[in-house]
Amino acid sequence: MATVALKCPFLAQLTLQQVRNSAQHILNVGSTSCPYYSKLVRKNSVYTGTQHSETARPMPSMPYTHEEIMTVHKQIINEQKQSLAVKPMHELPKKQSTAAPKEPYPHSYGDIIISTECQDLQCPFLKKTPIMLKRTPLDEDTIEINENFGKTATVTTVEASKPKSFEYQAFFNEKIEEKKRDNSYRIFKRVQRQSGLFPQAEEKTDDDTRLITIWCSNDYLGLGQHPKLKRAVISTKCFLMYRDTVNMHGSGSGGTRNISGTTPLHDNLEKLLARLHQKEAALLFTSCYVANDTTLFTLAKLLPNCQIFSDSGNHASMIQGIRNSQVPKHIFRHNDIEHLEHLLKKIPQHVPKIVAFETVHSMDGSICDLESMIDVAHRYGSITFIDEVHAVGLYGENGAGVGERDQVLHKMDIISGKAFGSIGGYIASTSKMTDFIRSYGSGFIFTTSLPPTVLASATAAIEISMSDEGRYLRQKQQENVCELRSKLIDAGLPVMVAPSHIIPIHVGDAAIATELCNDLLSKYSLYIQSINYPTVERGTERLRIAPTPHHTSAMIDYLVQSLTHVWQNIGLQLTQDNERIATRQHG
Amino acid sequence: MATVALKCPFLAQLTLQQVRNSAQHILNVGSTSCPYYSKLVRKNSVYTGTQHSETARPMPSMPYTHEEIMTVHKQIINEQKQSLAVKPMHELPKKQSTAAPKEPYPHSYGDIIISTECQDLQCPFLKKTPIMLKRTPLDEDTIEINENFGKTATVTTVEASKPKSFEYQAFFNEKIEEKKRDNSYRIFKRVQRQSGLFPQAEEKTDDDTRLITIWCSNDYLGLGQHPKLKRAVISTKCFLMYRDTVNMHGSGSGGTRNISGTTPLHDNLEKLLARLHQKEAALLFTSCYVANDTTLFTLAKLLPNCQIFSDSGNHASMIQGIRNSQVPKHIFRHNDIEHLEHLLKKIPQHVPKIVAFETVHSMDGSICDLESMIDVAHRYGSITFIDEVHAVGLYGENGAGVGERDQVLHKMDIISGKAFGSIGGYIASTSKMTDFIRSYGSGFIFTTSLPPTVLASATAAIEISMSDEGRYLRQKQQENVCELRSKLIDAGLPVMVAPSHIIPIHVGDAAIATELCNDLLSKYSLYIQSINYPTVERGTERLRIAPTPHHTSAMIDYLVQSLTHVWQNIGLQLTQDNERIATRQHG
Repeated sequence: MATVALKCPFLAQLTLQQVRNSAQHILNVGSTSCPYYSKLVRKNSVYTGTQHSETARPMPSMPYTHEEIMTVHKQIINEQKQSLAVKPMHELPKKQSTAAPKEPYPHSYGDIIISTECQDLQCPFLKKTPIMLKRTPLDEDTIEINENFGKTATVTTVEASKPKSFEYQAFFNEKIEEKKRDNSYRIFKRVQRQSGLFPQAEEKTDDDTRLITIWCSNDYLGLGQHPKLKRAVISTKCFLMYRDTVNMHGSGSGGTRNISGTTPLHDNLEKLLARLHQKEAALLFTSCYVANDTTLFTLAKLLPNCQIFSDSGNHASMIQGIRNSQVPKHIFRHNDIEHLEHLLKKIPQHVPKIVAFETVHSMDGSICDLESMIDVAHRYGSITFIDEVHAVGLYGENGAGVGERDQVLHKMDIISGKAFGSIGGYIASTSKMTDFIRSYGSGFIFTTSLPPTVLASATAAIEISMSDEGRYLRQKQQENVCELRSKLIDAGLPVMVAPSHIIPIHVGDAAIATELCNDLLSKYSLYIQSINYPTVERGTERLRIAPTPHHTSAMIDYLVQSLTHVWQNIGLQLTQDNERIATRQHG
Repeated sequence: MATVALKCPFLAQLTLQQVRNSAQHILNVGSTSCPYYSKLVRKNSVYTGTQHSETARPMPSMPYTHEEIMTVHKQIINEQKQSLAVKPMHELPKKQSTAAPKEPYPHSYGDIIISTECQDLQCPFLKKTPIMLKRTPLDEDTIEINENFGKTATVTTVEASKPKSFEYQAFFNEKIEEKKRDNSYRIFKRVQRQSGLFPQAEEKTDDDTRLITIWCSNDYLGLGQHPKLKRAVISTKCFLMYRDTVNMHGSGSGGTRNISGTTPLHDNLEKLLARLHQKEAALLFTSCYVANDTTLFTLAKLLPNCQIFSDSGNHASMIQGIRNSQVPKHIFRHNDIEHLEHLLKKIPQHVPKIVAFETVHSMDGSICDLESMIDVAHRYGSITFIDEVHAVGLYGENGAGVGERDQVLHKMDIISGKAFGSIGGYIASTSKMTDFIRSYGSGFIFTTSLPPTVLASATAAIEISMSDEGRYLRQKQQENVCELRSKLIDAGLPVMVAPSHIIPIHVGDAAIATELCNDLLSKYSLYIQSINYPTVERGTERLRIAPTPHHTSAMIDYLVQSLTHVWQNIGLQLTQDNERIATRQHG
């Protein structure tokens, strides 16, 4: 039987200098995971049957006592002292296992020698002995901490000869100051939603908690606090009984969709989404940002010689995917079908094209002329990528969005949407198309899938949307939108008139918008987020109000009064009525 | 008082042809949201006090009866018939409100006239009358459905003169077939995790459900099913009492971080993550894919003349961010510090640089020599972006990852990680750095924030990780890893030896890897996902096993036996022992 000298696989890869530099690291690595050590241990202690015996005994978790390890340790140190040459290590103490009879190894491996090739270092498996390398602080001059990064102002004196590194921290600081100077620096309001109170919530400052009314939530129907969604998170119907979703499935999915992270909850939600949009298939993403970015990027990259036609008002997620694909792009004026057609005309029919736009624009509240947009796109051999994020749940008989309301679902090639009342996004399209993105989309493939609680609440939200209750909520929301919008116009506030549920009020200055928002919150307990660059163009800063079905008329009146007061206090003019109408007419 | 003719804002923007084409669309748009309609209605029905009166009465949700609307409708139609000229509309029927006394309007607006400028169309606010435009199917030849997209093979006969569009659906089909041909087409296994059974779970096929053992979960410690995480989802400690997280906060956050989506739960989790990594601040993202992509992209784009040094084994999320930034990039051999130094040397000290790498590699299980990597990076004036996704929770006293284990947390500039046992990712760094990404990172800014249930379970997971229980779980996991790895090596399987908790078994062929995986699942109820391109390079396809603390010795033995059988049945050789050791030594 051959005696084989086995080099330590961890150390064999390193130079002597590296080993010296990384002593602590190597000790750590080896301590808990050296396959050779654990193999050796097991050979000597447990292995008693044939290699695939059904009766192989479990390995004890800590096979050696401290004293036994010490013995081996001393022995190796002695051997290393005597010679650098590797010698067989015969005398490993045998574990006194009461369970495993001391038979000769049925499967012979020969002797195994663990060598470090380095006197400085003990074999990692000995780390548990007390003679452990203590991490000694290195000399001051060898510590290579990135002063420019870690600290803002205390860059230590470097030798004059040493070239200066880039000052990262100062750079970050300057970029933040830049935002503060142009008033686009954001301070997030800390808002704790409290179930049952919606649209009210608690604002938490460092030393206070108080009740405020939220007027800018994207949870447009307040479904995030709907009893059915809450129940769905907690319990799932199973064999006619409700069982705990969390208790049943746990809090996480456990992996990417491919690696143990696809559950029936994913499948069912995708089927439901496909049905909602009357498409063959749907595909879930961790957010609609990722859905838009990944789908447009992947399509544009892989369709041969693809060109993209992008609405100038498109959301950042679409812009990101389009820009990164680096294919030729044509930007048409927001919702301007003639401009789109003008641009499409220039490209030969056979060239693959994508026309990408939103139905409801999240910041100006406009709704595109969906059918005409699609028809123009198709006329020139293009497919359409249509973002219904701010329309899903809110328009159409089942809440499938503007496509359903306008009865053109069958014409829409790819629809993207958001799992409302929760988190997560999706696309719906033909099964080939979704399978294509499933197979090629990096942002889909390489990410942990949505957890069961999110899937359960998203499923419940769609079920509500498709029910009479969903229809009632949509109706009530639109009534509230109408009431608030007309009252705001009456009050002389510069409402940007739009046909959707989003009511933007033009301010045109980031500092003033922020001040309005802060005053509303501090003086009137009303939370309307000011919308500044980069969410909207500079000069078009605004307050953006999104009424829900749960806001009452009293709340609406209070908002209009408060906003008018704040508006005037800050020195802004209210539009005179006749003047305003005349302006509208000619402007 | 002036009489002002107010054009319908929806119609005023359109040409007559557009109005004709979009009749249905316009009716829909106007039906529920016309601000002028609702204003008119309110003027005539409710507005009774001064403009900002505290006693303004709520608006009834349906102010007109069907009969009243019909009256207005007939009136307008008649007026339009008589003349195209716009006339004052005086005779709007007054709502017989019992509550609102019939006073003269205290605030005068003059008369408002709604005009469509188009005889073909009724004003949208009349949609509720029965005289509604019925959507008439258009002529066959005007329907512009994208045949090439929507259907796979049934491209209808187009006129010979019409240029042919790109055949999208055929293209998607071909790309999918391409994947099937080279065996990289993925069929997701449908696995329902059942709490309490971990690492076992239910596999759901269309007609069957059976218990399987998962050996490839990224929920490495099984925390997703930990009672504390489940409890956290359901209840939150509040004033010494546990209250329902879901019932308290609902299922969704309600918006982006900036727009009503920042809660104390976000703040607290970010503080906890910063503490875990001993950094000033942390920033949450919806996934670690987005954290890596966004942070690297934003840094590289904005740091002036930045250059990136990227480990050849980096995760797709990092590659995506780096590639899309389009800054000069240098790829160094996986974990090869000398190669990194060789590349860094070429770039002047003052140029901003980012060295990006992973501590634990998710697919080959290697662990980098962290401190040396960082030191080299810093020596050349670079900052480090270090992905600890597969190390957080698993290494170090508190589970902060390899950085904590190696005691170099203070040297790490930016750490990215994953909220384990759930979903979501983060970065931890200086407060300036995180504030910079918070202010400039598109993938952070423009996406809905994580929901309360996810935050609650992520927080609980970190608390466990930092406790004695976390330390016990890590120890137990490493023991299981050692045991399984040595038993696999003994059995003659080509284990790719690595120092981490990930055990890859080299296969080198996608079809065979998939077959092994399918056989294991169908014959032995064992789920190990085969890892094929694009997750790993072609020719390095593998099975990837991730033992958890919850796998037992009996499970390990069963796995080794089953895998050996499947391996041999498929015609693969097991390595002979001596041969194998010799190969290792010289290979």
